Amino acid sequence: MKEQMMKIIDVAAGRKAADLIIKNGKVVNVYGGNVIQGDIAITEGKIAGVGAYGSLPVNKDAAVMDAAGSFVAPGFIDSHIHIESSYVSPEELGRMVVPHGGTTIIADPHEIVNVCGLRGLDYMLEAGKRTKLDIQYMLPSCVPSTPFETSGANIDAEQMEEPLKNDAVLGLGEFMDFVGVIGNNEAAINKLVAAKKAGKVIDGHAAGVAGMDLNAYASCGIAADHECATIEEINERIASGMYVMLREGSACHNLRDNLKAVTKENAGRFVLCSDDRQPKTMLNEGHLDNHLRICVEEGLDAITALRMATVNAAECFGLKDRGAIAPGKRADLVFLKDLKNFEIRKVFIAGELVAENGTYLPEIEKYPIDVVKNSVRMKDFSAEKLKMHLKSNRVNTVKILPGGVVTEKKVETVKLDEAGEFIKTADIDVAKFAVVERHKGTGNVACGFLNGYGIQAGAIAVTIAHDSHNIIVVGVSDEEMEAAVNALQKQEGGAVLVKDGQVIESMPLPIAGLMSDQSGEWVNERLTQIHKTAHEVLGINEDVEPVMTLTFMSLAVIPEIRLTDMGLFDVNQFAFISVEAE
Amino acid sequence: MKEQMMKIIDVAAGRKAADLIIKNGKVVNVYGGNVIQGDIAITEGKIAGVGAYGSLPVNKDAAVMDAAGSFVAPGFIDSHIHIESSYVSPEELGRMVVPHGGTTIIADPHEIVNVCGLRGLDYMLEAGKRTKLDIQYMLPSCVPSTPFETSGANIDAEQMEEPLKNDAVLGLGEFMDFVGVIGNNEAAINKLVAAKKAGKVIDGHAAGVAGMDLNAYASCGIAADHECATIEEINERIASGMYVMLREGSACHNLRDNLKAVTKENAGRFVLCSDDRQPKTMLNEGHLDNHLRICVEEGLDAITALRMATVNAAECFGLKDRGAIAPGKRADLVFLKDLKNFEIRKVFIAGELVAENGTYLPEIEKYPIDVVKNSVRMKDFSAEKLKMHLKSNRVNTVKILPGGVVTEKKVETVKLDEAGEFIKTADIDVAKFAVVERHKGTGNVACGFLNGYGIQAGAIAVTIAHDSHNIIVVGVSDEEMEAAVNALQKQEGGAVLVKDGQVIESMPLPIAGLMSDQSGEWVNERLTQIHKTAHEVLGINEDVEPVMTLTFMSLAVIPEIRLTDMGLFDVNQFAFISVEAE
Repeated sequence: MKEQMMKIIDVAAGRKAADLIIKNGKVVNVYGGNVIQGDIAITEGKIAGVGAYGSLPVNKDAAVMDAAGSFVAPGFIDSHIHIESSYVSPEELGRMVVPHGGTTIIADPHEIVNVCGLRGLDYMLEAGKRTKLDIQYMLPSCVPSTPFETSGANIDAEQMEEPLKNDAVLGLGEFMDFVGVIGNNEAAINKLVAAKKAGKVIDGHAAGVAGMDLNAYASCGIAADHECATIEEINERIASGMYVMLREGSACHNLRDNLKAVTKENAGRFVLCSDDRQPKTMLNEGHLDNHLRICVEEGLDAITALRMATVNAAECFGLKDRGAIAPGKRADLVFLKDLKNFEIRKVFIAGELVAENGTYLPEIEKYPIDVVKNSVRMKDFSAEKLKMHLKSNRVNTVKILPGGVVTEKKVETVKLDEAGEFIKTADIDVAKFAVVERHKGTGNVACGFLNGYGIQAGAIAVTIAHDSHNIIVVGVSDEEMEAAVNALQKQEGGAVLVKDGQVIESMPLPIAGLMSDQSGEWVNERLTQIHKTAHEVLGINEDVEPVMTLTFMSLAVIPEIRLTDMGLFDVNQFAFISVEAE
Repeated sequence: MKEQMMKIIDVAAGRKAADLIIKNGKVVNVYGGNVIQGDIAITEGKIAGVGAYGSLPVNKDAAVMDAAGSFVAPGFIDSHIHIESSYVSPEELGRMVVPHGGTTIIADPHEIVNVCGLRGLDYMLEAGKRTKLDIQYMLPSCVPSTPFETSGANIDAEQMEEPLKNDAVLGLGEFMDFVGVIGNNEAAINKLVAAKKAGKVIDGHAAGVAGMDLNAYASCGIAADHECATIEEINERIASGMYVMLREGSACHNLRDNLKAVTKENAGRFVLCSDDRQPKTMLNEGHLDNHLRICVEEGLDAITALRMATVNAAECFGLKDRGAIAPGKRADLVFLKDLKNFEIRKVFIAGELVAENGTYLPEIEKYPIDVVKNSVRMKDFSAEKLKMHLKSNRVNTVKILPGGVVTEKKVETVKLDEAGEFIKTADIDVAKFAVVERHKGTGNVACGFLNGYGIQAGAIAVTIAHDSHNIIVVGVSDEEMEAAVNALQKQEGGAVLVKDGQVIESMPLPIAGLMSDQSGEWVNERLTQIHKTAHEVLGINEDVEPVMTLTFMSLAVIPEIRLTDMGLFDVNQFAFISVEAE
């Protein structure tokens, strides 16, 4: 530390030549809220200073770069993202995000840890070191997120102590068990105490929480929330001392609406986040550069928007070494053509040019995925397990409501054979679906009925099923479903489409059954093809996103009805119910 | 921690009764930048929440307080103060500051540590626990501040490690050796490294530093500066990531001028401080309530001003537990009649009512001062040591420039006897003065000439002499000077006036020769009387503050010329010079 500090002082004071000098940039001063002219001197991966460094003699080694009138802003910080929801590895996410100005992401590996436990965290930490993108990991706080499904791991406060001591772990990820916190559930409180004792930041998730309940939640020092749906909710969180994350993801689009809450007085309390961001969204719209475009489109001052993407996030997460172009900070820099379209010309991370005109420059390095492979492990699975032996043809179905993730509990009359087994008919849009436990060898298989999915042929199965990520399969017959599940196991997870017992489309996700080891472009191509075939060949309804819709069907915290490996769960009653309606 | 957290959650959620509910207050929301209506529920010394708590049933133990339409703001945080400059003990300062809304001060015990070393810090820490005012101590960074005088202690980086580990020490105090930092002086850098390794905040002091030098200084992560003289200096510091302290003290009045630099965009980067605040100023003008009045007088929005006095300071110093009225924060609260005159009605610290209508309510408790008494220890001092044996009557004098602390080096012709000893004459306003070492028994006595002080009878001596606090004495004869120094030793420091060998006024400061064990009112009465007698009886010039002027005469970092126990120091040459001019 001392040698580095002395080197930076020497360069800052103009006594020693910088490693890199960036001239002719319009430097965004996020502290003062303005743009200043000056040359940026960089050494040891840090900013030594902004000033008249361009007029000093340079070492033969020193590079001088002309920013050619670009705005130079601090690198962007995504305050909350689940890498797994991009279906790519951390290294690949880095390749996709960095050219859009992302230099730091706060990542919550909630999905992989639900599958692989702390082994999953270790993999993410190691893989994260292989990209120039600085990935700051949060320890997932709620594994499993509910007791209503079988997860691959169960991490209590005691098990958290060790990873919380790890300097590479920034804090505790979104504490979605707000019911536990507000209700003083001891297991939840123990986790908060463990994080506080370790001096770590705690991120929040408090959808719909208000009033005294919000006070109880905020009183624990939970730093932020990304689940605000109204201006009132935003103002209440800010008054409670929480930062508000303005989210624009692939599934949730809260940014435009929530920007209405930003004022000159409270702007310092907002940060930007993706939460979930699929390759398609990144390829078509970008990353935080897109957030910034939207902010300015909606009338926000560009520097206020940039502060949300930089210094505010650094302050929220205690990342004192970044977030501004100032002496001693990491040289994470973005060259912008203007402050309206936020076209990214160049990106530097720790003083190194890492992206130019949309291309990630460093050589791609990848961490071996062996440790998180082979995550699809069923016990004694066969079509026999899909038998339902129903005593009534009046059944509770899970009705898909297109355009969101909420479902409706709807009773339907279905056709059964003499053994009480479902027979798929064309007159009603109801299909059998099942959740097959894939982590602990419980042999759990639960069956139910999916309503409004539209499937008319074959089967589709996925190993992405929030939050425990068991297998969800839906098909027109037990045989097709069995073929899909077996194919999914063989390809080590992901998504698969089967017709007449044969695989007709597939996207293997060998990393915990959640992420590909291929490129984001490959994932996008695969998903596009799967969607096309799902609609055209399997007949899945056009207004339903075939894969993502399924991935939310086990999420037993969102109304109104879900299917997990333990059975059919009525979220309103907060209890398992019978498939038979009466 | 866990039990407290659960208790606060219970109260916040409305399940358990609060210890105290404050109703009918206009609650200042420093995060959102507005005023909200709501009842404040307090338990465990913390705020559980703001909401409809007034309508809940209360325990028979619970107190309900009616704020009666007062504004309720977070308690004020003075970002930088030297308690010693108030000439009172920490306990007494607490008594004086709290009724003015001060609930936290960031104190740098630079003076007492220069006299007593870390024993002085320990005393301040213990004494600080005896007042309700939360005193957050910084470890003095520069002891001694220069090598040009003998101090009572010499604290290098190695000796800092232990106190920096102390949780009761918030950080490293104003790093005034900016020359050392910018010049990469290893001793200075070692101190910064020690503080950073301990994870502590580092405060700054960078008078007049600009451009690349400021970058070098700021690159070390120094958090703030209170020495800004111009808008340009302020803007430069903000762009460098430093907080700017707006100072209004007894000696330095920078607030009104520096407020011109505050904008909506940069306001979050300002905090308020006193630096030095004498009892007279506190009794007549107050504390941060006076800063706030001035802010609003100068046109600043009141809530922006309040943010500087609260949440900004908390953020600057990493005091995450305070600075706002929000769930989980310390219940440090101030009731204000309005947001213009900032008349303080009530003050709460950690949920306890500690001041009302200008009166500090708790019983006064004081820590024994034995450990910091008897600090005036000369070796072999007598009038003989004041002999100068001059070979020339052309001498370099220290010319006082009224209204500031800068001096002028002025050559004068004085009258000498045959032995080369000075004879005081009426025709020229030059008197002999001396600095007598009082810490280490060096026996050092240095003599020089003070020009423009006006003394015509007797002698005056003080043990306050920045920054090493040796004895400064000025008088019309060696005998009067000797009498003053001996009287000062007998009374254990402070200030003394002598005429015809007899003490005619005195203010003993037994705590390290810097602070009284009496009240602020007593100090004020003593100082008033000393000033009166100094002017009327000793003939000291009316435009000279008799005591404070002397206390700056050894400060070898401020131009142009000073006298220390080691001799006459030319600040411009940065070297000792002879008293004889040629």
